[in-house]
Amino acid sequence: MFSDQDGSAASRRTGETAPVGAREALLGIIEGDAEELVASFYRTFLKHEEAANFLSHSVVQERLSHSLCRWLRAFFRDEPDDTEFAARQKHIGEVHARIKIPIHLVLEGASLVKSGIARRLPASSLTGEEMAAVLILLDERVDLAMRLMSEAYFIGTRQRAQVDEAYRLFSLGQDISMERESQRAALMEWSQSALFGLFGGQGNATLKPISASSFGLWLRHRAGMMFQGAAALDPIEGIMQQIDSVLLPKIADTRTGDASGLPQAVERLQAAIEEINFLLAELFQGAAALENGRDPLTRTLNRRFLPSILSREISLATTSGAAFCVLMIDIDHFKRINDQGGHSAGDLVLRQIADVILDSVRQSDFVFRYGGEEFLVALVETRLEDAVRLAERIRKTFTEQSLRLPDGGELTVTASIGVAAFDGHPDHAYLVNAADKALYRAKEMGRNRVETALPSDHDAPARQDAV
Amino acid sequence: MFSDQDGSAASRRTGETAPVGAREALLGIIEGDAEELVASFYRTFLKHEEAANFLSHSVVQERLSHSLCRWLRAFFRDEPDDTEFAARQKHIGEVHARIKIPIHLVLEGASLVKSGIARRLPASSLTGEEMAAVLILLDERVDLAMRLMSEAYFIGTRQRAQVDEAYRLFSLGQDISMERESQRAALMEWSQSALFGLFGGQGNATLKPISASSFGLWLRHRAGMMFQGAAALDPIEGIMQQIDSVLLPKIADTRTGDASGLPQAVERLQAAIEEINFLLAELFQGAAALENGRDPLTRTLNRRFLPSILSREISLATTSGAAFCVLMIDIDHFKRINDQGGHSAGDLVLRQIADVILDSVRQSDFVFRYGGEEFLVALVETRLEDAVRLAERIRKTFTEQSLRLPDGGELTVTASIGVAAFDGHPDHAYLVNAADKALYRAKEMGRNRVETALPSDHDAPARQDAV
Repeated sequence: MFSDQDGSAASRRTGETAPVGAREALLGIIEGDAEELVASFYRTFLKHEEAANFLSHSVVQERLSHSLCRWLRAFFRDEPDDTEFAARQKHIGEVHARIKIPIHLVLEGASLVKSGIARRLPASSLTGEEMAAVLILLDERVDLAMRLMSEAYFIGTRQRAQVDEAYRLFSLGQDISMERESQRAALMEWSQSALFGLFGGQGNATLKPISASSFGLWLRHRAGMMFQGAAALDPIEGIMQQIDSVLLPKIADTRTGDASGLPQAVERLQAAIEEINFLLAELFQGAAALENGRDPLTRTLNRRFLPSILSREISLATTSGAAFCVLMIDIDHFKRINDQGGHSAGDLVLRQIADVILDSVRQSDFVFRYGGEEFLVALVETRLEDAVRLAERIRKTFTEQSLRLPDGGELTVTASIGVAAFDGHPDHAYLVNAADKALYRAKEMGRNRVETALPSDHDAPARQDAV
Repeated sequence: MFSDQDGSAASRRTGETAPVGAREALLGIIEGDAEELVASFYRTFLKHEEAANFLSHSVVQERLSHSLCRWLRAFFRDEPDDTEFAARQKHIGEVHARIKIPIHLVLEGASLVKSGIARRLPASSLTGEEMAAVLILLDERVDLAMRLMSEAYFIGTRQRAQVDEAYRLFSLGQDISMERESQRAALMEWSQSALFGLFGGQGNATLKPISASSFGLWLRHRAGMMFQGAAALDPIEGIMQQIDSVLLPKIADTRTGDASGLPQAVERLQAAIEEINFLLAELFQGAAALENGRDPLTRTLNRRFLPSILSREISLATTSGAAFCVLMIDIDHFKRINDQGGHSAGDLVLRQIADVILDSVRQSDFVFRYGGEEFLVALVETRLEDAVRLAERIRKTFTEQSLRLPDGGELTVTASIGVAAFDGHPDHAYLVNAADKALYRAKEMGRNRVETALPSDHDAPARQDAV
């Protein structure tokens, strides 16, 4: 598809088919200079911090130089609608996804190659018009390759990200409290053996570094994946390094020389291990909270799934032509409940509020806790008038239904609700924002009411943090 | 970083700074023709099947035409090292990731715009040299924008894929047997109400379509996400459509006209519902098998996590400089056990084989079931000589340890093992392949032995299906 597409783009662009001379001029430059082009590509990229990470290893350089040369030489020999040409670019995209080379680096590399060739043009015997034709051909061919490559890259990247996440959640889903105890034990095992080594009869036996212990290996090779990006990871790593590079050598010194500093050094080691233990507990605790798909208080869906669900529903609605609506519900003056009855009152009331909403919708709808006392409801296959009717019903239920307070008292609340119908825009942030603006208007107009989004409410994406 | 990089690339490419004339010529073409450029962009893209999906809605066309015009006009006004220029391109990349526009379409769009401008050049009063300068400037600026965009796009896409997968697994992790019963109930509820409607006193009351029932909604809006790509999904959808568009109208006809066909029509409806019930059971069963992170027989890791784990270990080894090795273990003549003792013997023996391997490695290593009787072991922070020693120990354990058979008998097995050390290549497929080649040599050389990968074994990626 793309090669056809591009063939015609080429003719469109030059107003006629690319002159035979242009292709031959390009082939000439590349045949003669492929190795120098590749060498200069590497010179530039090795100065580039991010790219150098991928290229600095000699094995890579050697092999990649080779394949880059081959790639360049084949580049203008094949016709772009050659299926082998397409297959080669796609394969490269798959490999790049596998080794996770950022795509912007690949595009930058392509620009480097293009500019390397363009720089050689003035030295050729081409006229200005011929140079222009060569530049257009060069650009089109390289761009086509980048498109084919990035298509494969995109698919590979999505798949990899999914499997990575599945593995991470799988690791977390293993018996996590057992894992926690077994790592606490591994840590204690190391410190015990360090102490035995120190005070036992082994004299100058070297102490095994904590980073090479079972605990140290676990931290780097398991915890790093399970607790991706957790704040406690780096500090634990830092303390382990401190133990291995500062505390253990200091203890070893006091044993061979002046022993007076020993008690203090051992105390510092003990403090370091306690600190690791504390951070370890934090790590496991944080994970439990993070992985919950539902808001623990209200049992409504966690807001982080909002993009996944809304964009899927939007694409279903786009394909099927079915209607799709969003309600944004905010409880009026909720702060007063917290102010008067404390957070336990607020929490109890909020739970009952969520139940009212959950009981009002169908099993196939989605209820999210969007903010403190704000809920977002996604109503599948629902037209605007039905969504407004439902919103009215929810609003009315609140005014009629008493909610319990922890002290046995009761209260009723009112809700302001904004309703927006999907209007075809593929970006869900616009839909959320439209409902939000309607909600804002309901508040402005005195609260305890339902407002529908105006067409102009659909004109901007949601608040920055909404997506 | 990229703007600097690119600034210098621009000078490298033309041999000097881009002539002022080139930029002004470009600005002139764009100022005058932005709207026509955008219009032709849409004309081309609307003929493009994949792109049309994203553009066909009038709302989108209207808004996107507008922003594309604005984007083009600002394009050569800003300096490329302008932070606002970069911020704008990154923002566009984020939006594209959010609405999941494939990146190759965006790149194709950029090529269309480039060629639209290039096509206008011959009509200008520029010389050939000036045209070449304009083309270079145009190309560089658009490429820079695409790089900035795709960097943001890539990050957004990865994050989205992770959240999508987390949501899918969260949905599956909900009480799935309860979900199954509740959807069976929803299906029966619909068919019961259809039958009551049919034989009850309501006369010509219209029958509610199954696709609009609670079950129908669940299938489209929940099951589609939970059971992504499951084979049973489409057939269920197909039967529901058949019920709504063929069977229900037929039943309605027999009630108003000739009633003789009624029993047969009702029988067909019953068969259709039974078929849905059967497919539903299949759907839930398949999910349980699919989501298991471990091989159910041997409790070793599922091979689908191989890319996630190996590529993470490779990047850890690259950063830290630590050694990293892979063992590929295959049991010799395993087929004989299945042939003689049947699959139950094979399964029992395989479980004990896996235990031998699992007991031989550390907690921080990874053991995968790679194939039928083939296991892959990833040994973190392990040098080649230690990996070979471990492989020897495993090989020896097999020759010494009797394995139980279901009939109370015993047998011993032997294993061939290939060992490969990470050599710096970022693609894990190469490492897996090197171990595989060494294993092959161990087989060739008479089995029950350990072979180490030769440098030349690292020269090709793994078998197609390995990654």
